[in-house]
Amino acid sequence: MENIQDEVFDAAVIGTGPAGISAAITLTVRNKKVLLLGSRSLSDKISKAHAVRNYPGLPEIAGNDFQKKMLEHLDVLGIPVTEDQITACYALGDTFSLTGRSSRTYTAKTVIIASGINFGKPFEGEEQFLGRGVSYCATCDAALYKNKTVAVVAQTEKEESEAAFLAENCAEVYYIPMYKKEDIHFESSKVKVIQDAVVSVSGGMKVQKLVLKNQELDVDGVFILRDSVKPSQLVPGIELDGNHIAVDRQCRTNLKGCFACGDITGAPYQYIKAAGEGNVAALSAVEYLK
Amino acid sequence: MENIQDEVFDAAVIGTGPAGISAAITLTVRNKKVLLLGSRSLSDKISKAHAVRNYPGLPEIAGNDFQKKMLEHLDVLGIPVTEDQITACYALGDTFSLTGRSSRTYTAKTVIIASGINFGKPFEGEEQFLGRGVSYCATCDAALYKNKTVAVVAQTEKEESEAAFLAENCAEVYYIPMYKKEDIHFESSKVKVIQDAVVSVSGGMKVQKLVLKNQELDVDGVFILRDSVKPSQLVPGIELDGNHIAVDRQCRTNLKGCFACGDITGAPYQYIKAAGEGNVAALSAVEYLK
Repeated sequence: MENIQDEVFDAAVIGTGPAGISAAITLTVRNKKVLLLGSRSLSDKISKAHAVRNYPGLPEIAGNDFQKKMLEHLDVLGIPVTEDQITACYALGDTFSLTGRSSRTYTAKTVIIASGINFGKPFEGEEQFLGRGVSYCATCDAALYKNKTVAVVAQTEKEESEAAFLAENCAEVYYIPMYKKEDIHFESSKVKVIQDAVVSVSGGMKVQKLVLKNQELDVDGVFILRDSVKPSQLVPGIELDGNHIAVDRQCRTNLKGCFACGDITGAPYQYIKAAGEGNVAALSAVEYLK
Repeated sequence: MENIQDEVFDAAVIGTGPAGISAAITLTVRNKKVLLLGSRSLSDKISKAHAVRNYPGLPEIAGNDFQKKMLEHLDVLGIPVTEDQITACYALGDTFSLTGRSSRTYTAKTVIIASGINFGKPFEGEEQFLGRGVSYCATCDAALYKNKTVAVVAQTEKEESEAAFLAENCAEVYYIPMYKKEDIHFESSKVKVIQDAVVSVSGGMKVQKLVLKNQELDVDGVFILRDSVKPSQLVPGIELDGNHIAVDRQCRTNLKGCFACGDITGAPYQYIKAAGEGNVAALSAVEYLK
């Protein structure tokens, strides 16, 4: 795993929900070199599900047991999960280059996007100021805000460590959680937790303000940290169908060598549908690799 | 179950492979009244599979264990399998009428076709003489051949009982097995087993001959008994894409209220793809029933 950045994978699978896991399993069974990117804790939605009733073969299974079964299958086939969140993916002729929040770069001949639809609606001004004060990656962009003031808008509590890291560089860090948690505590006094709702990002050439429902914050940068990145930002040039990635029945996108499966291709948002599409996308990638 | 023919089901699911089972499960979870038609021994292909490696959550599972898991899931949800093979399905305005080999007729508001691709290529002359000597249903048509000579072309050994039944009515029954089995024995001396390959059905206005590779048989009728019926014969007017039923990403066919899933919609022929599509077809039927 040390030289993971030097390897060229047959397929990079983005996402560790049922779609991504299914794709990685089928690719492995077909002897392809797979890079499975995501989290071993898989998806929050899964572990918190009370019971899954309609995944054939696993009747009335609790969310966390379902998650265990998925991880067990990965382990049986020896498929590691590379814990990273991909923030950008570019087609470079015959290969794709993927960059993660870890700042690592990966190379693969095909890409399978299975990152779910947990990306939320962008805030007003978010897309306008992307790269001009709005960032999706603390590791990548912290250095740009040395001794400056930033805000972190966080979808899940795992972003607390990102805010703590930013506090090592920045003068002040406002932390706005989008999740429910009573007591959020930071060691650094530079981090100030604000329980409020984001309205918009505003400024001139660059970001100047994060507007909340009950106050406005003067900031130099806004880190918006969600569980997944909007597909149009993740893969420039990818064709959408509303909020979803447009695919055909073989899970092919408009970009050669790039496939999509699971919730990101549209409803129904169901585990078994996602797992089925993961298989289809994987076999389309195998076909493409010929 | 006695008055099953008087009930109007929300959905009739044709086929008990992973696609049909998945559809029946999701429909039941969504409180729809489901008629699942097929065999509790599910599919031959499944029980004979050595190991399924890429059905996420059930790693390295043997075919017969996979089959047990599927039946267990049906039992947990109290979904019975109605053992019948549907040979015809007609749209009658707001409902569909389905006829089985048992001669029973069923009524449902929607139909989900999940009958697999085990129908084989039709023999030369088969379609031409359908209804004029070629039949797919011994129970339905035996009376037409009283004291006459018929041939039974059988895909699986379960058709031996159909030939035995025909012998009660007919003067002579030639039995041509398409499966491998050394010793096929019938109690009735009227049944003659012929190990040969079918070439064509021929005749004038009606069937006169079944042409085999090594001989020709003079017959009044030919029963061609396969595990599933060709989709174009099963549902008149259904749009095909080659040998498959044409569906969109929601598993909708060209006929309103009629959906298809699994192998019959095209490759890849994989359990998890089939199960995923069963879910999609079921939810499209739920949407249609609104």
